[in-house]
Amino acid sequence: MNKMKLLIIFLTIILLLPAGTRIVSAASTAAADEGMWTFDNPPLKQLKERYGFTPTQEWLDHIRLASVRFMDGGSGSFVSSDGLILTNHHVAVGQLQKISTAEKDFVASGFYASTLEEELKSPDLEVNVLVSMDDVTQRVKAAVKPEMSDAEALKARRAERAAIEKESLEKTGLQSDVVSLYHGGEYWLYRYKKYTDVRLVMAPERQAAYFGGDFDNFTYPRYDLDMAFFRAYENGKPVKSDHYLRWNSKGPERGELVFVSGNPGSTDRLYTFARLRNQRDVYYPMILDFIDKYITALREYSQQGKEQTRRALIRIFGLENGKKALTGEYQGLQDPELMSKHKKKEEQFLEKVNSNPEWKSQFGDAWKKTEEAIKKSAARAEQNFYRRLTGSQMAGFAVEIVRFVVEVKKPDGERLPGFHDSELDRLKFFLFSPAPIYKDMEEHLLAASLSWSLDILGPDDEYLQMVLEGRTPAETAAALIKESRLDDATLRKSLVEGGEEAVKKCKDPLIVLARKMDPFTREQEKWNRENIESVLTTAGEKIAQARFAVYGKTTYPDATFTLRLSYGAAVGYPMNGTKAPYKTTLYGLFDRSLSFGAEGDYALPQRFWDRKDRLDLATPANFVSTCDIIGGNSGSPVINKQGEFIGVIFDGNIESLPGRFVFDESKNRAVAVHSAYMMEALRKLYDADRLVEELTR
Amino acid sequence: MNKMKLLIIFLTIILLLPAGTRIVSAASTAAADEGMWTFDNPPLKQLKERYGFTPTQEWLDHIRLASVRFMDGGSGSFVSSDGLILTNHHVAVGQLQKISTAEKDFVASGFYASTLEEELKSPDLEVNVLVSMDDVTQRVKAAVKPEMSDAEALKARRAERAAIEKESLEKTGLQSDVVSLYHGGEYWLYRYKKYTDVRLVMAPERQAAYFGGDFDNFTYPRYDLDMAFFRAYENGKPVKSDHYLRWNSKGPERGELVFVSGNPGSTDRLYTFARLRNQRDVYYPMILDFIDKYITALREYSQQGKEQTRRALIRIFGLENGKKALTGEYQGLQDPELMSKHKKKEEQFLEKVNSNPEWKSQFGDAWKKTEEAIKKSAARAEQNFYRRLTGSQMAGFAVEIVRFVVEVKKPDGERLPGFHDSELDRLKFFLFSPAPIYKDMEEHLLAASLSWSLDILGPDDEYLQMVLEGRTPAETAAALIKESRLDDATLRKSLVEGGEEAVKKCKDPLIVLARKMDPFTREQEKWNRENIESVLTTAGEKIAQARFAVYGKTTYPDATFTLRLSYGAAVGYPMNGTKAPYKTTLYGLFDRSLSFGAEGDYALPQRFWDRKDRLDLATPANFVSTCDIIGGNSGSPVINKQGEFIGVIFDGNIESLPGRFVFDESKNRAVAVHSAYMMEALRKLYDADRLVEELTR
Repeated sequence: MNKMKLLIIFLTIILLLPAGTRIVSAASTAAADEGMWTFDNPPLKQLKERYGFTPTQEWLDHIRLASVRFMDGGSGSFVSSDGLILTNHHVAVGQLQKISTAEKDFVASGFYASTLEEELKSPDLEVNVLVSMDDVTQRVKAAVKPEMSDAEALKARRAERAAIEKESLEKTGLQSDVVSLYHGGEYWLYRYKKYTDVRLVMAPERQAAYFGGDFDNFTYPRYDLDMAFFRAYENGKPVKSDHYLRWNSKGPERGELVFVSGNPGSTDRLYTFARLRNQRDVYYPMILDFIDKYITALREYSQQGKEQTRRALIRIFGLENGKKALTGEYQGLQDPELMSKHKKKEEQFLEKVNSNPEWKSQFGDAWKKTEEAIKKSAARAEQNFYRRLTGSQMAGFAVEIVRFVVEVKKPDGERLPGFHDSELDRLKFFLFSPAPIYKDMEEHLLAASLSWSLDILGPDDEYLQMVLEGRTPAETAAALIKESRLDDATLRKSLVEGGEEAVKKCKDPLIVLARKMDPFTREQEKWNRENIESVLTTAGEKIAQARFAVYGKTTYPDATFTLRLSYGAAVGYPMNGTKAPYKTTLYGLFDRSLSFGAEGDYALPQRFWDRKDRLDLATPANFVSTCDIIGGNSGSPVINKQGEFIGVIFDGNIESLPGRFVFDESKNRAVAVHSAYMMEALRKLYDADRLVEELTR
Repeated sequence: MNKMKLLIIFLTIILLLPAGTRIVSAASTAAADEGMWTFDNPPLKQLKERYGFTPTQEWLDHIRLASVRFMDGGSGSFVSSDGLILTNHHVAVGQLQKISTAEKDFVASGFYASTLEEELKSPDLEVNVLVSMDDVTQRVKAAVKPEMSDAEALKARRAERAAIEKESLEKTGLQSDVVSLYHGGEYWLYRYKKYTDVRLVMAPERQAAYFGGDFDNFTYPRYDLDMAFFRAYENGKPVKSDHYLRWNSKGPERGELVFVSGNPGSTDRLYTFARLRNQRDVYYPMILDFIDKYITALREYSQQGKEQTRRALIRIFGLENGKKALTGEYQGLQDPELMSKHKKKEEQFLEKVNSNPEWKSQFGDAWKKTEEAIKKSAARAEQNFYRRLTGSQMAGFAVEIVRFVVEVKKPDGERLPGFHDSELDRLKFFLFSPAPIYKDMEEHLLAASLSWSLDILGPDDEYLQMVLEGRTPAETAAALIKESRLDDATLRKSLVEGGEEAVKKCKDPLIVLARKMDPFTREQEKWNRENIESVLTTAGEKIAQARFAVYGKTTYPDATFTLRLSYGAAVGYPMNGTKAPYKTTLYGLFDRSLSFGAEGDYALPQRFWDRKDRLDLATPANFVSTCDIIGGNSGSPVINKQGEFIGVIFDGNIESLPGRFVFDESKNRAVAVHSAYMMEALRKLYDADRLVEELTR
């Protein structure tokens, strides 16, 4: 059940790794400046026809190798030959939070290492560079035999994907992921150079980076200095590479062709209509309700004091961000025009499929099968969703550890997803993270989430009875969290390394509970795999093949948090009765701050006032382009034809949110920090001479 | 047929008197900060309950006597004891255009009289001050006898209104207008002190006043210096009065209670649902189509050269302004929620009326009668609309002159509306205006409008055959305009003064045509009066009485371009995914200019760049409030509780446009120039020391 999977990934990210999950915004026969193109299939035709530009293979390779994926949910790029990486402050904020304490709050006060030695190691940041892409579609598909049921086919496909990944890892030592594109239309082996020694170099104050707060989030005109610098290290030394983007403070002219290279998280543009309708009627109402409850619980916790406010701040930020994104998407789904457009497109597609007898017999049943599976999953959606322990990282660790020790004993191809050999390093990096865990917050949130489950599932629910054992949610959470020592990374490590034996003997209440729950959860997951996911996967492959048969490979796949190239022009758009300019200036920053009394979300760090007269206020602050992006693209470089760095993506406008389903060039815009603002700020506000020298040498 | 009447007034204003007709935006049981209240019935209850403020009668009288109505479509206020009047640049622009030439373009370059002697007389500006209000409802209603038909009742009512006006004029010498409020629910005699020697004192460049052009028109955040100063003279000397508003450059705090005193043009909030639906289905599509054609014709004319561009500029401005306003209103009508809200309100009202047998028999048939009349009028709407000579002021003069000489010979009570004794001064002032007329533009526009009539009515139309006489529209326009001398005010005067005899002998082709058309037009108007207007008037009175019976006089009447008091708070609002601040600053002016390359509609006068460093950029530029306004309110003062001047209304936000039908406090905002910006500009940009001294002494 693919969507649930994505949902869980989404929740995992925002709930457990509240870092950098700012969701910004990114069709079947692509027109206009649309598309998140894979680097194997760049939009050469469109670029030539619309902009008279043809990138060379060398250009494409250089951009790809200068692009960085942040595993906690964002993008970035190398901007010097010494491994300097630029991303958004809101991508970095998870690490900033993890190195902060009550006494030293880097989120609030920012950070600058004036020497290499002062650069600060991130506790659990992994970044990736995509070094190769190989089409393995034939091999994955060959693993599925005609006589197999959907469930057997799913198993076989997974085993084959794991085998390919394992072979590649052993052969190259590189992180190797088999990626499903076009919902199973193609399978590609992506190999990544992985960096886990990534050190913080510079971040401005959150007030400068996130100026305007949740109000201005996903809107434009904007004036945010949403940047942060890291440096990748290998063997204790800065990484050296020629594949970095040269800095250009001029930024784009109005109308100039620009590119974005980054990792859009997910889109639903190739969904069937039945699936889209399910998103509207089942998924979005459920998740939006959940987020509201979650924000309320965090606000309650915040009210306990200043330090609690600090601890909860970026989780609230992540949830508010998610809420605003999902609300905009939900509004898109409620727009009858968007829905009927999508439906019409599907009808035209189906008509073509059905008009060819061969296509009809090969692919024709896929839509109906999808609809049936979606219907089945919808009936269990709330149950599945609320039969999980949410809100507590420690509980999440317990569940993973209990499974880890069992799964790794199985042959690689038979393991649950997430526990294949090729994935273990990443999982361990996550499980053994030394980042601080706040037990009082854990307890508060676990109690809250158990009470929501109780509301939804009722006291007779089998799962809840297992967890609560007759206690109230608050008693349960207190008993589980207070007694647990899973906030200690060394304990987690010793359990993983001690294997099944150690876990069996462990009396930690969260481990005990996780062991008790495990068979139940496995059963539930099995049902989902056999009844939903396997059907959707088979049907998805058929629909993808049908699309290739009817339209050829003229389009791009839905986003999968893998590297994509978008292109577009730096142009404004019609907005709220007038038009939005393609860029803003620093004059506007001070205007907006003063317009709101320079307080709350519109307060600026004191240095902005103290040094205002040093600044050239005509300096461009932010700018927009028609580049097609979505959440995950945060931190992506904006690049000109010369391959130079001219800005960093940090948001989409409010009009871009329905872009999850349909791209609308007339008003969908990607919002970026202008390179000139970053340089002006580094020079005149932050005295970051070392960094300026490195960026401009 | 009331709407057609308003429409024709609207067109007369924008087509013949293109000045100051910027339409900015303004329910049956008023809640929130809603309402355009007459000064005899101020919202004391609401002010006390919401703001704890009770204005004294003295306060109300002072505000009223400091308020000014601009007869060419706007409002203003006295701001010194020497007759200094402040209004908007866009209210003044008609007069600015009329005193401009190819060599000296005051619209573009602005104007400042550094001495009293340099103040420049406006060619045809009339301003009014409302000095008294008397309820004459009983007298007007008593003129209608039960046995009269609707048509007879209309005649009797009109005759009585004219008699009241005439008596008052003779007794007091004051301009005396009987105003119908609540669509005939009440009749009031309004007496005005009238000034026709009104001299221009100061106006900034159009680029500063109308910064952002049609794009930013009806939107916010804004940064416009939309102000102009006139001075009222009597007997060649500045008018002295204690009733002026003291200047306060501090403006409003966030959330502060503020007032607007001005003359909203028209609203349709008390319309029946059937009538509203007719607006949506018949009126708006027709008028929007017409405006489009008109703008196209003016653009064609502009392309002939620089001087033509200058001549057409403010007409295009007026039409674009009207188009944007009407488009916003039309969108409101197309909003199913707005319509169903309106319908529900009517249903509740009707239910109450029908539940009382007496009310039911007295008023119950009014809604059906209205619907039937509206249906009849809709069937003839296009025909009526296109059987007129539009686009040419000279043709308009001809039609009025031909009627004038006939009507004035009748007893006052029997004349057509517009020709009563109490109205003749105003009509003559208009007919004898020395303002320049551009014959090449007249010809171009008349030819265009005849061709539209030909498209709509077809060549067999009786009216068109009379006008065209077998010629093409272009030939007809050429023959009529080239040979006519009606561009000369002395000829117009001699015809009016020469009476029927002089007009009969006159060979001017436009006069000849107007005489030929007159019987036809009279017949058409008679049909409208007897079939539509009389029915609507009787029904309107009934509905108004029913409203008073059911709800009492708890509400305000629809706008009628008479003096009203609005109140509200200076607060921002949710906008396009974020929020708009209650005020902007001069920082924002430079931001928006530079964001668009400081060119086109976003260019600023050179003095803004030259003197930028003298300005305190933190000075508030514009601000919004929840005050309920609409077109006609342009130039209205914004006033604080102390009765001080703190800003001048110049626009409504885009969200306010459906306010013609329903007021929505959550997002309907009135946009004003902040008093601080005006003072800063007068001091530091315009060196207007004399004016500053007068305003601050």
